[in-house]
Amino acid sequence: MNTMQLRWNDLADVKRELAARDWFPGTSGNLSIKVDDASFLVTASGKDKRKETNEDFLLVDAQGEAIEGYAGKPSAETLLHVEVYGKTDAGCSLHVHTIDNNVISELYGDKGEVTFAGQEIIKALGLWEEYAQVTVPIISNYADIPKLAEEFGKYVSTDAGAVLIRNHGITVWGRDAFEAKKFLEAYEFLFSWHIKLLILKGR
Amino acid sequence: MNTMQLRWNDLADVKRELAARDWFPGTSGNLSIKVDDASFLVTASGKDKRKETNEDFLLVDAQGEAIEGYAGKPSAETLLHVEVYGKTDAGCSLHVHTIDNNVISELYGDKGEVTFAGQEIIKALGLWEEYAQVTVPIISNYADIPKLAEEFGKYVSTDAGAVLIRNHGITVWGRDAFEAKKFLEAYEFLFSWHIKLLILKGR
Amino acid sequence: MNTMQLRWNDLADVKRELAARDWFPGTSGNLSIKVDDASFLVTASGKDKRKETNEDFLLVDAQGEAIEGYAGKPSAETLLHVEVYGKTDAGCSLHVHTIDNNVISELYGDKGEVTFAGQEIIKALGLWEEYAQVTVPIISNYADIPKLAEEFGKYVSTDAGAVLIRNHGITVWGRDAFEAKKFLEAYEFLFSWHIKLLILKGR
Amino acid sequence: MNTMQLRWNDLADVKRELAARDWFPGTSGNLSIKVDDASFLVTASGKDKRKETNEDFLLVDAQGEAIEGYAGKPSAETLLHVEVYGKTDAGCSLHVHTIDNNVISELYGDKGEVTFAGQEIIKALGLWEEYAQVTVPIISNYADIPKLAEEFGKYVSTDAGAVLIRNHGITVWGRDAFEAKKFLEAYEFLFSWHIKLLILKGR
Repeated sequence: MNTMQLRWNDLADVKRELAARDWFPGTSGNLSIKVDDASFLVTASGKDKRKETNEDFLLVDAQGEAIEGYAGKPSAETLLHVEVYGKTDAGCSLHVHTIDNNVISELYGDKGEVTFAGQEIIKALGLWEEYAQVTVPIISNYADIPKLAEEFGKYVSTDAGAVLIRNHGITVWGRDAFEAKKFLEAYEFLFSWHIKLLILKGR
Repeated sequence: MNTMQLRWNDLADVKRELAARDWFPGTSGNLSIKVDDASFLVTASGKDKRKETNEDFLLVDAQGEAIEGYAGKPSAETLLHVEVYGKTDAGCSLHVHTIDNNVISELYGDKGEVTFAGQEIIKALGLWEEYAQVTVPIISNYADIPKLAEEFGKYVSTDAGAVLIRNHGITVWGRDAFEAKKFLEAYEFLFSWHIKLLILKGR
Repeated sequence: MNTMQLRWNDLADVKRELAARDWFPGTSGNLSIKVDDASFLVTASGKDKRKETNEDFLLVDAQGEAIEGYAGKPSAETLLHVEVYGKTDAGCSLHVHTIDNNVISELYGDKGEVTFAGQEIIKALGLWEEYAQVTVPIISNYADIPKLAEEFGKYVSTDAGAVLIRNHGITVWGRDAFEAKKFLEAYEFLFSWHIKLLILKGR
Repeated sequence: MNTMQLRWNDLADVKRELAARDWFPGTSGNLSIKVDDASFLVTASGKDKRKETNEDFLLVDAQGEAIEGYAGKPSAETLLHVEVYGKTDAGCSLHVHTIDNNVISELYGDKGEVTFAGQEIIKALGLWEEYAQVTVPIISNYADIPKLAEEFGKYVSTDAGAVLIRNHGITVWGRDAFEAKKFLEAYEFLFSWHIKLLILKGR
């Protein structure tokens, strides 16, 4: 199996698992995986991610332009993935809409970020100190995608990271599909844990 | 495969997926799909939608009357689907009971409608502007079905739409099964997001 | 297939579906189905209901005593099922622990009953009037099973019904497995809907 | 099949079921099962527990040191399992992170324990009296694992038990995989029931 096929399979695995959790409501969400320095696979626009087809992903170049020979259109938000691969050595980037990441993004949207501390799952993000804390930036949800990508890109500098878009969703990236999914699960756990504590303890 | 078989399979796919989410509690809910201008398939009355059988759907005419040769009875609420196909060019109509669509319908029932804004998922409803908002009408839950259908029909005019019935459920329609399910997922996401924010921020 | 096998399969179907919803936490819950006037099948005591085996159910007589030739012990709460088959013509009885039925039983336990009205799903309970309401009795959770069964039996008179046991669970019965499961889903929907509205609107 | 294979299969069964419930977010959690007095199987460090491979578990000695011939590294928290097998006759130990066990551990963390009473599911823990109550200790989440294991070990004395680690998760142990899973489900039920009642009734 060549690199393209291996990466296709990696991304299909992640897509299947996240779809089973209903993390792509209304055909939302988009995923990508790097194939080489000049290209990455990205989900096709507007498809039901519960279904598996040979047109689920398209190969695009480093600028996000579709490479000939692929059916369909790349995700409307491909430019955000371009930021990730252009500015870091990450290998996979996942964008999903969940109720809880949307709720967190609205609760802390005016502040522009949300910080978590004192939670064991933070270790899954690679932070192993006893009092580790993690801050996720929250950007405005510009309808204009190049503008959104530009704003998003300001927070993209390390090979692992996450950005919340207000009332829209989260984008998480990591070295490969395994790591990006691990980070995504850890962030979603932080969001759900924090929300439930807020409901019980007040804000 | 003929048109009837293709549409049957489309509707069976949607039914299977929504059943797996437990969106048909107590045999509730009903689904339909247009076959041609003179007929549509509709779920049989009173069946467990977790099961798949050859009697899951019946062909009915444009007035919702069963066409000879089909076992069982059409859903008691077939007349609402008649409104959809009679007044629009929609091709599929889905009615489900979820906890969250029932809760929203009660919270905003006196007002007669509920409006959502500032949520990315609204784009899944075909509204792409930055400040798009969407309003869902909420009608009373008349036990008399012809009366319910008449009230429902007042809000049926475009090929894509949704109506909440108070403490009963939502009916969503679209061009085909893919679109109707996409809209339904987007509305349910809006409801769950809004409810969780209400719990956290108060009303 | 003989009657015993048919009923075994009916009960196994219900068990599989409810287990997938995690409605049998910690080996809790018990199910039964009538085979004839002199016997019924009941779940074996203390088994993980996620697993399917040939020892999942035992045949017991009308008094709940195990009939020779079956491995294992009948559920410790078999006497409650004896009440159902002794006092009504019901054919299936389901007892499950869910978070929401336990929460409702505690919230309204002092009152001894809980009433729901103005909800479409009430029709699934066979009540079709526009302003139908349904009341579920809530009994104390006696550790002594014969005493619990006696108290439970006071509320068993019709072929379809339900009783909540405080901080323990619900028992629902109906004509057959299909009907009992339909009723159970409807009650659980009522509980979850009511709880979410209470959280939002206060008590 | 030899003992090692039997225990491997027991643990793989539990892992599969808990993974399907998403109780291992971000590769968190670890599981172990005793093979004999000198060794136990423990989950490998840092793997996605949704996947099933021949490297999921490693055989370690009574001190938690990997026995030659196994790929990968034992879980970073293997020392906690060493406490269980060293101090009791338990045969299986399960550690998972759930939203609700983390929330309970934070709500009652300052108190150092949480007590439940008046709940039927307590019987699943082997406590059959009418007014049985159960107390779960809550320890601080030391980043230093030997220190965490030492603190944890103070609460390990009986063949069945549970300890919450603040904002980290629960460890539950029992005679075998069946019993440990039964206990875990019962504790999680207690946590979720208690949290929902707190939300409704206030603290």
